[in-house]
Amino acid sequence: MNFAHFKIPGFLFSAISAGIKKDGKKDLGLIYSETPAHVAGLFTTNKVKAAPVLISMERIKEGSSQAIFVNSGNANACTGQRGIKDGYYISSLLSKELGIKTVHILLSSTGVIGVPLPIKKIAQKIPELVRGLSPDGWADVVEAIMTTDTQPKMEWGSCRIRGKRVKLCGMAKGAGMICPNLATMLSFLVTDAHIESLLLQKILKEVVELTYNRITIDGEMSTNDTVLILANGRADHPPLNQKDKDAQIFKSMLLEVCQKLAQQIVRDGEGVTKVIEILVQGAKSDEEAKRAAYGIAHSPLVKTAFFGEDANWGRILSALGHSDISMNPNRVDIFFDEVPIVKNGMGTGSKLEERASKVLKKRTFKLIVHLHQGKGRFSILTSDLSLDYVKINASYRS
Amino acid sequence: MNFAHFKIPGFLFSAISAGIKKDGKKDLGLIYSETPAHVAGLFTTNKVKAAPVLISMERIKEGSSQAIFVNSGNANACTGQRGIKDGYYISSLLSKELGIKTVHILLSSTGVIGVPLPIKKIAQKIPELVRGLSPDGWADVVEAIMTTDTQPKMEWGSCRIRGKRVKLCGMAKGAGMICPNLATMLSFLVTDAHIESLLLQKILKEVVELTYNRITIDGEMSTNDTVLILANGRADHPPLNQKDKDAQIFKSMLLEVCQKLAQQIVRDGEGVTKVIEILVQGAKSDEEAKRAAYGIAHSPLVKTAFFGEDANWGRILSALGHSDISMNPNRVDIFFDEVPIVKNGMGTGSKLEERASKVLKKRTFKLIVHLHQGKGRFSILTSDLSLDYVKINASYRS
Repeated sequence: MNFAHFKIPGFLFSAISAGIKKDGKKDLGLIYSETPAHVAGLFTTNKVKAAPVLISMERIKEGSSQAIFVNSGNANACTGQRGIKDGYYISSLLSKELGIKTVHILLSSTGVIGVPLPIKKIAQKIPELVRGLSPDGWADVVEAIMTTDTQPKMEWGSCRIRGKRVKLCGMAKGAGMICPNLATMLSFLVTDAHIESLLLQKILKEVVELTYNRITIDGEMSTNDTVLILANGRADHPPLNQKDKDAQIFKSMLLEVCQKLAQQIVRDGEGVTKVIEILVQGAKSDEEAKRAAYGIAHSPLVKTAFFGEDANWGRILSALGHSDISMNPNRVDIFFDEVPIVKNGMGTGSKLEERASKVLKKRTFKLIVHLHQGKGRFSILTSDLSLDYVKINASYRS
Repeated sequence: MNFAHFKIPGFLFSAISAGIKKDGKKDLGLIYSETPAHVAGLFTTNKVKAAPVLISMERIKEGSSQAIFVNSGNANACTGQRGIKDGYYISSLLSKELGIKTVHILLSSTGVIGVPLPIKKIAQKIPELVRGLSPDGWADVVEAIMTTDTQPKMEWGSCRIRGKRVKLCGMAKGAGMICPNLATMLSFLVTDAHIESLLLQKILKEVVELTYNRITIDGEMSTNDTVLILANGRADHPPLNQKDKDAQIFKSMLLEVCQKLAQQIVRDGEGVTKVIEILVQGAKSDEEAKRAAYGIAHSPLVKTAFFGEDANWGRILSALGHSDISMNPNRVDIFFDEVPIVKNGMGTGSKLEERASKVLKKRTFKLIVHLHQGKGRFSILTSDLSLDYVKINASYRS
């Protein structure tokens, strides 16, 4: 997909290097809406929240925003009052340069924890950052939010609402133990749809529940995780109404974009060699299916077996038994893709295990568990636990 | 400690190889009490329980037992009705050879999951196993329960009750992702104390809560975890009474032995290069302190930082924030041994971080977290997450 010529009316973008990242790569990004846009956002539920998260959580309560400022290389987390002050200072500079209210400026950071922002370096560069705003700087901002990501992550979508073409652009940076410190997941989305912030928040929440909240590399949640969406209404259709099918059309577009971004995040997780979709069905409830799926996805024994391409179903059964769900071990069935490896809680024999081993050699496969307890189901996307994962996360700073 | 001459009156031991382990090492063990002994036991809470666990759980309800049969190399787990039948068959053979009731025979297994026991090999060897019983075969049984353990794990204790010397012998095999399949933790204890099974069960439960339940390598719980204690009463003191200080004396002895065995298990965990005591204090409740301690101990990011000898306190704060506890991030203090690395949620500077880095170079150290929310406290023993851990657990069977 070539994003160079993909523009959304009324949105401008800019990114430069302020020297926060050591390698001189882009580390400041700015997304700007020419008019106040409706806004929605979701933030980390970690009790330890970075200063920019605390500030942005307050500001989206306004219902409208005009700018998202992001820096990489420093998370501005665990930096106390100084971190908040630095955030206010950046906002005031941007407010002057852009001629907009500070309350309309959202902040986001990713990078090392516990080190104050290099605020002078950043402040100096803000005029240049604002001067650089252009309708086709989208891909530059994607670059500016990358940390250990090996690939830029962006997707776009479009749909038709009441005869008008509506567009959506989305970007993300990686989950799963992002170097240098934590698994920060950032995603920014902009659209020219006309949608009030309350409905936008509702739809965003539902979509994130089905996408970003369904991926897990290692069960960690960072101090900085943030998803933001701006909708400037330029597509000029009547405002979306919750009861209309138009709202559903918009939601489908958002879902597809976020799904693709979520998949990109898992594929590009630290040290990932396998991407596994875990589907648990036949659970007593969806909630129990979720617990079972996460129980499997977070088991180091299961994850190292995936890395070792070992169809070790005993580890999966044991992870299930440890998941605090209703289950009868003698009724569990397990499949790798279409290969039944466990039937009624027992192995199906060496021939099928051989076939399952071939499935595990693929880079992407499905693990399906049927509990035969009810109708609950849940699926998530996860990865293996590799030697590189340990190397990457053990070697930081040393 | 030389165990060769440590005997407990009335207990006999035997161990041989039945060829279940590939390398011809001992894989069958038998602990025998000349008279029915009072018994207590604790078993895995994993819903997927191995056949020997299901059988032994039923049999200890009798209150007395006379033999513990154990095999390594095969867990007899996820083997369905066949697994149960095999367990009954072994019991009946032992019952005949020993001349004791089958209900007085407890079973325990560790090893590969999902493969039926090589029952013929085992059955053939039972007469030889019984013939080998001797008062000083203790260390042989310890050998027979080892799997990836690099060290045999045994401890003994003694105390004086109403003028009589009371002795206790304990053995254990490793936790933490035991090859070939799971983190099976087994511990068998024998004593000549005179104590009824109800009180023995109560004391064992309290002791296990403070010892084996306070260690974690990777948060896994196997299908076969088992702790059993036999008390034959040969020390000839009046039966212990819950209200007497004699019961406390016995409990202290058991606690010390189990504590030492638990420490040995963590030190010998798969791929372990560091043993870390995590102490959380100032939590709102002991329960919250426990959640926080496990939240830190199970965080792959924290564990890989330990392996990398990186005083990465941001990962610890983030794991806390993710632990579902009452906390004010701005009031958290963190120490590595005596070095304060975080004060009021913020780093204490590069000099102290350098000192903390030196602590992390040690093989054993303490991580102390103070939440300043209340009086709750909890401590556990854990390990790092190393490259060898992944190698060991990814390479099984391949």
